[in-house]
Amino acid sequence: MKLEDLKLEIRNVPDFPTKGIMFRDLTTMLKNAASLQLMSRELAALYRDKGITKVVGIESRGFIGGSILAYELGCGFVPARKPGKLPSVTVKKSYAKEYGIDTIELHSDAISSDDVVLIHDDLLATGGTMAACCELVKSMNPEKIYVNFIVELESLHGRDTLPDDIEVTSLLKY
Amino acid sequence: MKLEDLKLEIRNVPDFPTKGIMFRDLTTMLKNAASLQLMSRELAALYRDKGITKVVGIESRGFIGGSILAYELGCGFVPARKPGKLPSVTVKKSYAKEYGIDTIELHSDAISSDDVVLIHDDLLATGGTMAACCELVKSMNPEKIYVNFIVELESLHGRDTLPDDIEVTSLLKY
Repeated sequence: MKLEDLKLEIRNVPDFPTKGIMFRDLTTMLKNAASLQLMSRELAALYRDKGITKVVGIESRGFIGGSILAYELGCGFVPARKPGKLPSVTVKKSYAKEYGIDTIELHSDAISSDDVVLIHDDLLATGGTMAACCELVKSMNPEKIYVNFIVELESLHGRDTLPDDIEVTSLLKY
Repeated sequence: MKLEDLKLEIRNVPDFPTKGIMFRDLTTMLKNAASLQLMSRELAALYRDKGITKVVGIESRGFIGGSILAYELGCGFVPARKPGKLPSVTVKKSYAKEYGIDTIELHSDAISSDDVVLIHDDLLATGGTMAACCELVKSMNPEKIYVNFIVELESLHGRDTLPDDIEVTSLLKY
């Protein structure tokens, strides 16, 4: 199996969550043992030599690749969560979504100044959530930040909303 | 580091989410590289010889240990999600929670009759969500089902709500 073959394992669901959207459903890829192994090894290979100390995974689909990355790279895992879910002291950032405002939260003690942070989510669409998460992680002054996705929807230009000084990678592009 | 030392990495947060509850916050354990490795290896060791073909992780904290387990055991990962999140045809099960009704969903094609399924969540409290998930997975007629948690709150007797014929393990007991 080659990297591009992973696309054959992704299910395309028209009109989800709303009419006119072609939803890229990664669950069919994740449930296949061979493609989960390939996806995980390819993701980790991108960051093996970067000295990553913490992987931040964005709730909730970003927890899947994010936790595998943390385990495989031998670093810590940090969940970026929807508001009210984290029990201790947090930092939070609100941002505009298509319909209304959303908020993302991190524990204040989750990242320190000597961390090299990889922020992971499953899919880059318009980039709003990731841009907010980048700003939040930046406010915690880590040594360096990287950003990674499994899938990137290039036609939506989500990359343009992310900070210029952060290196962004994605495994599969549409 | 020994298995019981993981408890030292778990943060105890009093009165979360409501007064009188001592919340076991696993995020402090997950962000520590050494304890994430130990936790993951110990979880996988419990199931190495069981022929697991799919790990079901329960949204959203169950995605963390669940996806690492699937990767480490070399099988597929299946997310059990809150209603309306899965884009294709689903099976669903509603169950009573402390306040109102909750529903859990799986893609109908996520599990087949030749699968050996491990259902994973981070924490066993009253067991309502896991009991519903067991029933849902059972309705898909897999060969066998196992259930695993990272933490079990024994005083809440959640095990008693789970089917008698399913083997249940937990890494750390309170």
